[in-house]
Amino acid sequence: MRTFTTIQSLQEWRKSLPKGKTLGVVPTMGALHLGHASLLETSARENDFTLATIFINPTQFNQSSDFEKYPKTFEADLAMCEKYGADAVFAPKDANEIYPDHFQYRVSEHQFSNELCGEFRPGHFEGVLTVVLKLLNLAKADHAYFGEKDHQQLTLISGMAKAFFLETKIIPCPTVREDSGLALSSRNLRLSAAEKEIAPRLYQVISTILDVIQAKEELTRLGFRVEYLIDKPETTGRRRYVAAWLGDVRLIDNVRI
Amino acid sequence: MRTFTTIQSLQEWRKSLPKGKTLGVVPTMGALHLGHASLLETSARENDFTLATIFINPTQFNQSSDFEKYPKTFEADLAMCEKYGADAVFAPKDANEIYPDHFQYRVSEHQFSNELCGEFRPGHFEGVLTVVLKLLNLAKADHAYFGEKDHQQLTLISGMAKAFFLETKIIPCPTVREDSGLALSSRNLRLSAAEKEIAPRLYQVISTILDVIQAKEELTRLGFRVEYLIDKPETTGRRRYVAAWLGDVRLIDNVRI
Repeated sequence: MRTFTTIQSLQEWRKSLPKGKTLGVVPTMGALHLGHASLLETSARENDFTLATIFINPTQFNQSSDFEKYPKTFEADLAMCEKYGADAVFAPKDANEIYPDHFQYRVSEHQFSNELCGEFRPGHFEGVLTVVLKLLNLAKADHAYFGEKDHQQLTLISGMAKAFFLETKIIPCPTVREDSGLALSSRNLRLSAAEKEIAPRLYQVISTILDVIQAKEELTRLGFRVEYLIDKPETTGRRRYVAAWLGDVRLIDNVRI
Repeated sequence: MRTFTTIQSLQEWRKSLPKGKTLGVVPTMGALHLGHASLLETSARENDFTLATIFINPTQFNQSSDFEKYPKTFEADLAMCEKYGADAVFAPKDANEIYPDHFQYRVSEHQFSNELCGEFRPGHFEGVLTVVLKLLNLAKADHAYFGEKDHQQLTLISGMAKAFFLETKIIPCPTVREDSGLALSSRNLRLSAAEKEIAPRLYQVISTILDVIQAKEELTRLGFRVEYLIDKPETTGRRRYVAAWLGDVRLIDNVRI
């Protein structure tokens, strides 16, 4: 497995790949868990080559403390990428590599990005869309893999790919959960032992208590501070989105209902 | 010369071009004049194939009256494209073709785009950058040609191409002027005969009167309403930017000083 820290070396590798072979890209912020492993495995199965990117994107953190506390597990991440089938990892050493424009150019969405997480994390999705467009343009992949755990993010990225006629196809991958039902997330690493006991109830409650007000009350009773719990129509049926805090850790999840 | 009105037909043509051959793209809003002709000629000379796009982009008009009054000369435009070497023209019939996202996704710049024209035309450069990114992604050209007449636009588009690692190289082309010195512009078509007499003084004044205040006074005396006249440092030397109204027509120009 190759590791690149500069755009130039990444681009040279990209150009060296044989024409007619497919490339899948798995953009990550590191702190890889089995959710990412599933993205990598899917990409490796569906493409001739797989590129993982590891870049903790500063522009998507609306609170600098969240950025600073974001888990950094680089050596373990590389081992994980190799184990689950990546051919190359692009891990820029600093933000200037990705933001030669000094953060002046941005991509934004002006409807769905203001709802749900967007309402509580101003600028978050602008940061996500901006870095994803940059990474997709660098990777020039046939397919890019994103988890349904961040379903609003996935929806916005898919919309961006269509709006800007990107060649890369966005592939949604199912949320990976612990046996308890807890959705895997890098932020789970920051839960205390006691919080880790309560956290699985988030998924249990949203998938079993159909009434939104009752579900919120139950989460509050269990010790969550609910930020939002909203059912939204999809093309067919509905999806329920939730964000809730346990201590200083913000958890999100979503289910089809 | 081929003419396409749908993205699908454009993309099929793009795919049909032989590998290893180069493509130049000249994005326009129609109302073509010899300034555009120079872009087309340059592209035809420097590339194996040249694509012109004709699309009056609604999102870059901050005043709907300016959008409505924008000259529409489609048949003449097609003849011009053919004459100056275009192999194909992409002229979408309506905005939905380019904005399947219903205008929800946008590209913006947060520094230089707020100065000069950006100060007086809020949202203008966001509209320009958004449509140019879409057109560049569709064209997948090796080179894209833009006139130095719209120097701030050119600078912002070049910056966007670097910020988002676009493969298309942005090629600046010199402003084309009438013998009088008046920079060619589609908006010149809207000048009255009397205004057309005065208009060339804009270029004459900004390139001969070095003092900014004196230059503004002279333009005002001649009948211009000066919006801005600003000297800005460049990598080497300075560039002077001006926007001034004659009646209800807004003219812009710029010179190295």
